[in-house]
Amino acid sequence: MEARKIGVLTGGGDCPGLNAVIRGIVRKGVQEYAYEFVGFRDGWRGPLEGDVVPLGIPAVRGILPRGGTILGSSRTNPFKEEHGVRRIKENLAKEEVDALITIGGEDTLGVAARLSDEFGIPCVGVPKTIDNDLSATDYTFGFDTAVGIATEAIDRLHTTAESHMRVLVVEVMGRHAGWIALHSGLAGGANAILIPEQRFSVDDVCSWVTSRFKASYAPIVVVAEGAMPKDGELVLKDGSLDSFGHVRLSGVGEWLAKEIERRTGKEARTTVLGHVQRGGTPSAFDRWLATRFGLHAIDAVRDGDFGKMVALRGTDIVRVPIAEATSRLKTVDPALYAEVGVFFG
Amino acid sequence: MEARKIGVLTGGGDCPGLNAVIRGIVRKGVQEYAYEFVGFRDGWRGPLEGDVVPLGIPAVRGILPRGGTILGSSRTNPFKEEHGVRRIKENLAKEEVDALITIGGEDTLGVAARLSDEFGIPCVGVPKTIDNDLSATDYTFGFDTAVGIATEAIDRLHTTAESHMRVLVVEVMGRHAGWIALHSGLAGGANAILIPEQRFSVDDVCSWVTSRFKASYAPIVVVAEGAMPKDGELVLKDGSLDSFGHVRLSGVGEWLAKEIERRTGKEARTTVLGHVQRGGTPSAFDRWLATRFGLHAIDAVRDGDFGKMVALRGTDIVRVPIAEATSRLKTVDPALYAEVGVFFG
Amino acid sequence: MEARKIGVLTGGGDCPGLNAVIRGIVRKGVQEYAYEFVGFRDGWRGPLEGDVVPLGIPAVRGILPRGGTILGSSRTNPFKEEHGVRRIKENLAKEEVDALITIGGEDTLGVAARLSDEFGIPCVGVPKTIDNDLSATDYTFGFDTAVGIATEAIDRLHTTAESHMRVLVVEVMGRHAGWIALHSGLAGGANAILIPEQRFSVDDVCSWVTSRFKASYAPIVVVAEGAMPKDGELVLKDGSLDSFGHVRLSGVGEWLAKEIERRTGKEARTTVLGHVQRGGTPSAFDRWLATRFGLHAIDAVRDGDFGKMVALRGTDIVRVPIAEATSRLKTVDPALYAEVGVFFG
Amino acid sequence: MEARKIGVLTGGGDCPGLNAVIRGIVRKGVQEYAYEFVGFRDGWRGPLEGDVVPLGIPAVRGILPRGGTILGSSRTNPFKEEHGVRRIKENLAKEEVDALITIGGEDTLGVAARLSDEFGIPCVGVPKTIDNDLSATDYTFGFDTAVGIATEAIDRLHTTAESHMRVLVVEVMGRHAGWIALHSGLAGGANAILIPEQRFSVDDVCSWVTSRFKASYAPIVVVAEGAMPKDGELVLKDGSLDSFGHVRLSGVGEWLAKEIERRTGKEARTTVLGHVQRGGTPSAFDRWLATRFGLHAIDAVRDGDFGKMVALRGTDIVRVPIAEATSRLKTVDPALYAEVGVFFG
Repeated sequence: MEARKIGVLTGGGDCPGLNAVIRGIVRKGVQEYAYEFVGFRDGWRGPLEGDVVPLGIPAVRGILPRGGTILGSSRTNPFKEEHGVRRIKENLAKEEVDALITIGGEDTLGVAARLSDEFGIPCVGVPKTIDNDLSATDYTFGFDTAVGIATEAIDRLHTTAESHMRVLVVEVMGRHAGWIALHSGLAGGANAILIPEQRFSVDDVCSWVTSRFKASYAPIVVVAEGAMPKDGELVLKDGSLDSFGHVRLSGVGEWLAKEIERRTGKEARTTVLGHVQRGGTPSAFDRWLATRFGLHAIDAVRDGDFGKMVALRGTDIVRVPIAEATSRLKTVDPALYAEVGVFFG
Repeated sequence: MEARKIGVLTGGGDCPGLNAVIRGIVRKGVQEYAYEFVGFRDGWRGPLEGDVVPLGIPAVRGILPRGGTILGSSRTNPFKEEHGVRRIKENLAKEEVDALITIGGEDTLGVAARLSDEFGIPCVGVPKTIDNDLSATDYTFGFDTAVGIATEAIDRLHTTAESHMRVLVVEVMGRHAGWIALHSGLAGGANAILIPEQRFSVDDVCSWVTSRFKASYAPIVVVAEGAMPKDGELVLKDGSLDSFGHVRLSGVGEWLAKEIERRTGKEARTTVLGHVQRGGTPSAFDRWLATRFGLHAIDAVRDGDFGKMVALRGTDIVRVPIAEATSRLKTVDPALYAEVGVFFG
Repeated sequence: MEARKIGVLTGGGDCPGLNAVIRGIVRKGVQEYAYEFVGFRDGWRGPLEGDVVPLGIPAVRGILPRGGTILGSSRTNPFKEEHGVRRIKENLAKEEVDALITIGGEDTLGVAARLSDEFGIPCVGVPKTIDNDLSATDYTFGFDTAVGIATEAIDRLHTTAESHMRVLVVEVMGRHAGWIALHSGLAGGANAILIPEQRFSVDDVCSWVTSRFKASYAPIVVVAEGAMPKDGELVLKDGSLDSFGHVRLSGVGEWLAKEIERRTGKEARTTVLGHVQRGGTPSAFDRWLATRFGLHAIDAVRDGDFGKMVALRGTDIVRVPIAEATSRLKTVDPALYAEVGVFFG
Repeated sequence: MEARKIGVLTGGGDCPGLNAVIRGIVRKGVQEYAYEFVGFRDGWRGPLEGDVVPLGIPAVRGILPRGGTILGSSRTNPFKEEHGVRRIKENLAKEEVDALITIGGEDTLGVAARLSDEFGIPCVGVPKTIDNDLSATDYTFGFDTAVGIATEAIDRLHTTAESHMRVLVVEVMGRHAGWIALHSGLAGGANAILIPEQRFSVDDVCSWVTSRFKASYAPIVVVAEGAMPKDGELVLKDGSLDSFGHVRLSGVGEWLAKEIERRTGKEARTTVLGHVQRGGTPSAFDRWLATRFGLHAIDAVRDGDFGKMVALRGTDIVRVPIAEATSRLKTVDPALYAEVGVFFG
């Protein structure tokens, strides 16, 4: 079968570069392969409900530097909807769509893998996660932008921390993987970097804080939102119990700042960057990567290479089975974490 | 008396531009008037305890673009210390300091005014507040930098808000005056701006939010940390009672996001920029203003014009009595707030 | 006569903030006064040729942070076109436009003044010049953005200059007024700032360069494109004769770098920022100023206050006769230039 | 032999990240291996003339975000100096330096390779080139920063180009390799990208320019400083003959802008970013890469693995023979250049 009309969707949390992917797909698809395109709105909700928008060259003009996604996004999972797969098949048929390019993270791509492998819907995947925690690709787009924003924030905190000799705690994104914390913490010259992969000791943090003050500098502590202490009670924000059986009333950043104040007697302040990390214009690196992902995804469609996902290996874009790529979370290697530990304190 | 040796101190919260002021004072004082300088460390703690550092041309090289203050800062108030004034006089005499340039906000300058007017210690003031709430000057340095940082954050939030059709709440600095919220909210295209000067109606906010969604855009709400609702219970973070007699468990940003979710059924997320707003390199505007404040402060010393503070009026630097300048907080004029209200919703 | 339908145009060189003005005019005009709007394309070419575009709330959504102008611009002057005024009158009548808001510099506003004062076409002006050289207003929007960009460039040059102990020459905008050079040069810590208002001595520049090297730092020289040496031959780029009767083959920046190399024996490099200074997203300051100019311009229309231009005085927006405001170029005051001279060398 | 005291030098053009490498080397070397360090000033000039500076933990504090190099740089080549190798050996002996870490590009590392391989001076290399043209490593630090700066400039040019429907030509770094042009041009949405690897046709450029105007957009042309036309006369800046036998009077950017104006009748403007691309604070990516290069370089010293250079492969830092790594320039692969060609016009 040769594809002539291709559907595109973006699912899961948005991140800078989604529009660059879409533009890359459409520009090459239209100009080199004379494909037609249709956009499905809000991730899997689009094909489920037949919510489509036109997607030609005019639609992708000027979107390269814009964050977010012109197609909208959602966390809808067709396998949790009644007759989900059948409805998708019907809507693809109705729109005469021959293949789908799905841009998303573990969940969105997991659906694409099953639809492709089990139900014969031709899907090509493009990996996306702000957290950089997808295995099979060196980096995902959006991550470099997030790291840049967090690093700039940390840069700014040094001078105010030092003027008042205070501790500054910065909470960054990363529920299950500490990549943003690790990269921005290293780049920003943090004195402690706490990641979800390794329970942290509040006592260690306090001793790094104290040692930094002894050198007449003020400490910056970077903590991933999913990091957990091994000592001390961290209670979950939403009132639910955490894995220690505690109710958390605040984010880990604010909690940690209070613990540091209590244990060291030093003032501590917190910054919670939140969605600022995932919004706005992508970095040049992310635009490059996202655009190339788009160009290679449409090549995979042309080659009929379905069930595959594009991925970065070194400076090359390769193809890997989606199912394989989404089976395992890419977390921070303990050896790499140890490597940067030389800068703590 | 002609001054030959001048002391410089920075007090209160740090803000970008302090070093530019110090550099301006020293460069002109040394090169044009052949003055000597000494820096007092950590605001009024310095002259109180005789904690001094050398302050010549080499000390001010390269500090123009650096945030914070090379002299350190504190909130120490000599009128709350035993024999505070006497100890300051003794330390000034010991260091042979003829005049003091005090860079600070309401508190620091208030002390300078009294020392100058009541105790004959020759002081010149330079106004500083990130919040821009000092009357007698059009702007204070640091404010433009803070507004720029907050605006950039708001810019970034638009695309992520729209991709998921969520409400984004941004809490910015401003305990008593809403200048940062007003300027960054307007510049960032916020759909609601909430300031301490005027109690806000959560219902109004929710109706703006709803109307924005109806136009197929996602709303951004900017709220000053000191803003207060007139309806709804806002409980104070530190467990103390607020003016309504409520205990606040969270910042107003997080509280408001939850209220919006509860009342409109729309998802809301919060960003708390915190000290990122007051750290790091000053904007070009703030470097220009701070440098000129420094150049004019040393001219005031040379003229023996003590008890005065430099201030910006249009594009001119003028001198005003410190006592007068610090007597009244400059809050947002209701007419100006009404002017920007046209963009709400 | 009460205006009901208003035309808007932007003329002359573009600068960041034009779209913010347009948005301010339309949002307030539509929402508060129920006006209708029409946009004329490419400055005075629009009303001359009847080239109009619809201008309602949807047209101004999302344009606040965007540089350039959605209406296009040109340097067309109706007084140099046959029957220019008559054609404008006819086209305004045809579109049933009751009043014009003209956003532009000396030339565009000069036309508006004559059309308003001599020909009875109701015009309100909004001042715009990247160079900040319009008298009657403290600042024009776009200027702060340009200064910010130039300052950031200068910041970057310091480290590379010092690593190689080279002279770095930065040529910035400013044909007739040195405001961008003065502000960015001061903010960036330049060691020489050369402006069109005062012929510079290459010997002085070389002696500042040499003195900077003696202090073990590398010098940065900021030169406005319109600055002229009093010694040395500067030949004009376009092959025409300059006021010395010389042919200039290169920009002043490159010329000066070569002269410095020749006279001091030190390596020198040049950066020519060019249009980067006038493109892209406006700074928060410029968005604030431009938006308020728009809000007040529409108020002037409502008040029937024609022949006037909005202007910034301190923190207030006022109205002044256009004719008066455009009669004199605002150049750098020699006293102000002397003030910053303390940082040379 | 176990190294106890290590010398560090930086040679060639500076680029952002050099200080991050030095800090990484010293922090790990002192804290984990108890090494002592000495810095040699200005590349190979340092060991040639015995010009050394102390290099301990205090010297590397706060340098991570700073561009340039605290050790200075030069293009001195010891093989072109009388008794160069002997003098280096003597000075290393005098300082009791057991091993050298040399951070530099092709030239600096080429010297290190020969000193190590032919003269038994234990050297470890760290690759550095703003142009990213060193084979054996996926990326060099500094490159990402340069691309980011160029991309930001291109972003800014779009709006001003479109407001006046002009062509904007941006000349970026890259004498022999077009990596900066390629990455920034793609990321910035340029309509033509011209690189040294492939002679460009001015006619093609003009046809892309024309086609872009037909779509009602204004074109951006990115040209590497080393790009050369295959049609048209490009005359060399310095008066020397180029490979066509012509004298160039201007940079390729300015020359091309004039040719485009002449051939298409459209106005064109030029920006020459120059050294702005190599100065200032490194991007987060470059700080990460440079720091890890430093950490791994000191490990190579500890392992006695001399004559080797650290390199990036995917996300890993590996070691490769210096001699091999510097033998071949890494230029843009024609296939990759063709890939981005889809965006031209």
